[in-house]
Amino acid sequence: MSDRTGSGGPLSAYGLDELRGRHSAKWRHHPPQVLPVWVAEMDTPLAEPIVTALAGAVSRGDTGYATPCGLPEAYAAFAARRFGHHADPAAIRLVPDVMAGVVEVLHLVTRPGDRVVVNTPAYPPYFYWLPRIGRQVVQSPLALGPDGHRLDLAALERDFAAGAAAYLLCNPHNPTGLVLGEDELLAVAALADEYGVRVVSDEIHAPLVYPGGRHVPFPSLDAPAGARSVALVSASKAWNLPGLKAALAVPGEEARADVAGIDPEVSESAGMFGVLASEAAFSEGEPWLDELMAGLSANRTLLGELLAERLPGVVYRPPQATYLAWLDLRALGLGDDPAEWFLRHGEVALYSGLKFGPPGSGFARFNFATSPALLTDAMTRMSDALTTRRTSTLNAP
Amino acid sequence: MSDRTGSGGPLSAYGLDELRGRHSAKWRHHPPQVLPVWVAEMDTPLAEPIVTALAGAVSRGDTGYATPCGLPEAYAAFAARRFGHHADPAAIRLVPDVMAGVVEVLHLVTRPGDRVVVNTPAYPPYFYWLPRIGRQVVQSPLALGPDGHRLDLAALERDFAAGAAAYLLCNPHNPTGLVLGEDELLAVAALADEYGVRVVSDEIHAPLVYPGGRHVPFPSLDAPAGARSVALVSASKAWNLPGLKAALAVPGEEARADVAGIDPEVSESAGMFGVLASEAAFSEGEPWLDELMAGLSANRTLLGELLAERLPGVVYRPPQATYLAWLDLRALGLGDDPAEWFLRHGEVALYSGLKFGPPGSGFARFNFATSPALLTDAMTRMSDALTTRRTSTLNAP
Ligand SMILES: Cc1ncc(COP(=O)(O)O)c(C=O)c1O
Ligand SMILES: Cc1ncc(COP(=O)(O)O)c(C=O)c1O
Repeated sequence: MSDRTGSGGPLSAYGLDELRGRHSAKWRHHPPQVLPVWVAEMDTPLAEPIVTALAGAVSRGDTGYATPCGLPEAYAAFAARRFGHHADPAAIRLVPDVMAGVVEVLHLVTRPGDRVVVNTPAYPPYFYWLPRIGRQVVQSPLALGPDGHRLDLAALERDFAAGAAAYLLCNPHNPTGLVLGEDELLAVAALADEYGVRVVSDEIHAPLVYPGGRHVPFPSLDAPAGARSVALVSASKAWNLPGLKAALAVPGEEARADVAGIDPEVSESAGMFGVLASEAAFSEGEPWLDELMAGLSANRTLLGELLAERLPGVVYRPPQATYLAWLDLRALGLGDDPAEWFLRHGEVALYSGLKFGPPGSGFARFNFATSPALLTDAMTRMSDALTTRRTSTLNAP
Repeated sequence: MSDRTGSGGPLSAYGLDELRGRHSAKWRHHPPQVLPVWVAEMDTPLAEPIVTALAGAVSRGDTGYATPCGLPEAYAAFAARRFGHHADPAAIRLVPDVMAGVVEVLHLVTRPGDRVVVNTPAYPPYFYWLPRIGRQVVQSPLALGPDGHRLDLAALERDFAAGAAAYLLCNPHNPTGLVLGEDELLAVAALADEYGVRVVSDEIHAPLVYPGGRHVPFPSLDAPAGARSVALVSASKAWNLPGLKAALAVPGEEARADVAGIDPEVSESAGMFGVLASEAAFSEGEPWLDELMAGLSANRTLLGELLAERLPGVVYRPPQATYLAWLDLRALGLGDDPAEWFLRHGEVALYSGLKFGPPGSGFARFNFATSPALLTDAMTRMSDALTTRRTSTLNAP
């Protein structure tokens, strides 16, 4: 076993052989010669308080149907410390995961056929789950300027005015890493109030905002739309627990009754281990999170250096939050799906930009929650593939 | 820690204090002075191969998004050994739990507004989840004769003929423990073929059939309706893993395309630990299961003895499968909800029969997957409550 506690921090704890022993999507979706940097899993070990919680659950045989235990309280205390948001634990409901929580809340606050606005590029499963419950996805692209992505309030107003029932905000934003400031959120809230749009806020990446930024929970906003909003939160991204199945619906003051409408059947279909691990994460996992953020911060810089050196032409804007880099690969001339090209020619699996909606053409998402060594390996695979192409093009008759 | 490996078997491993340290629904839904015998969780420790699988997953940090791993293969081998059913693992799909699998399959093989027949008394969540996806529940009561419950084929035919799209069969049946024989299943299949009804078969209790009975998977039937059916199976009841979230959809030959229509998003929302634990259960958990069945068999007899001795008038028919006793408490004169009465007067929590549909009036479900000591404790609480009532009635003016 490599350095799990040393200076490398949690991102450098496991080597490739150990990671290939995992059974999760990141490590099983492609053949073993492929280096995966696509899905939002991290290559970290579990934080010690989580290991303790899970070991206890195994020894108790605590594998029955999930209850919320102290998770709402643990989250509320975490949100108060980290975000200055004082949520009432009694109003918070357990759901199996953030996506299921989004579906539950939209099921409760909108009606079949209703239009739900999402910003593109967008987390791909939105395009499956919203139509699945008969809601129409309205794609409202983020603006892309020389300084990177930003919210396009004029586009949003146009889409609200066309008759939207809800806005599924993703903040911090996957895949761009955009973190909206309080002023922008208040402007969104004003539009939502003007057009009678309910805001459902996917805040799964909130614990992962880099220094300089600040996460503002939508339900904490001093605006009617804030009070009427519901945030979906989870420990699953920041502590790498997506396979254990627990998330929370956190209502604003005026959305408590809606969230109370989430059926106990739904809460009980969460994962018991997810609840226990998440409670440990929110209440005792901050030291680990801080160490993780230091490592991610270093990787965020390293990725920029490696790209500049080895893949010139790729446009990379360091994200304000989380470990996903939304790479603009259009200058490489690899067509609309560079991820597919790199998988075929470089044995490295990025997440295809096409899955994020039309603005993803020529883009790919790169997950840098790994060791500096594997991050470098991925960059080498990409640059070697390009070099080979260049050489073979030169040598072609 | 009490006897975990001794002659008491897995049912006697934990004492009440240890069980009260659990966080699951059984142990957290009521205040600690209440003895819970309602929800279908068992008071057992995890089987050793499951402990090993989970400990490995914790140490690898294997908490990312679920993949099916070797679970379909492990289930297929188990079904071949135990039921003589040769299912093709390649056709089997992962789902988060049996209820979610039922919803997925009905979503794929029926249409909104369609009628789905279920036998009452019925597993209560059917009444929530089927309407939730816009399907109508048609209640087709089992027949209750002097020999206990049996399938009422005439009632079933009437309900099929009235225009049902699907039949959600529950076999072995919760809460009655009824196990349908091959002849009965073939008669059901003939009706399903005659009326064009798709059979979705909830077989979650299949590993728990007592000696003398035999589980016949519906998709294994030599009939068109068998080939067109889908079974939902899981290790969650037999090895007590409901909180880890994994189940499988197993199609008959002609239902492979339907099951292939289950979206990867759905499979990926299963629990990674559920997959790993279930794979260990199906491939290495049979010795533990056999030991469990011996203990359950003894409890099934003990329950009858205790009832006869302490609660005369209660009609108990030992189930042919699983650890749920469907008690007919009507002779006690406690009204239509005796579970509620015993909770209030005896600090013992049975599952209210009313939740299972109209035939549950005056009935309650009792879970005997516990130690003989706690089973006796529950009976004592019930009989003491009745004695107190009798005394106070006598003493009343
Ligand atoms: C923005 C966003 N929402 C939701 C999810 C899914 O979360 P969960 O696994 O809790 O459904 C992800 C996962 O990466 C995500 O990035
Ligand atoms: C007949 C039946 N179906 C489904 C379930 C639920 O299974 P799961 O937790 O896998 O959804 C149960 C649980 O007791 C059950 O008895």
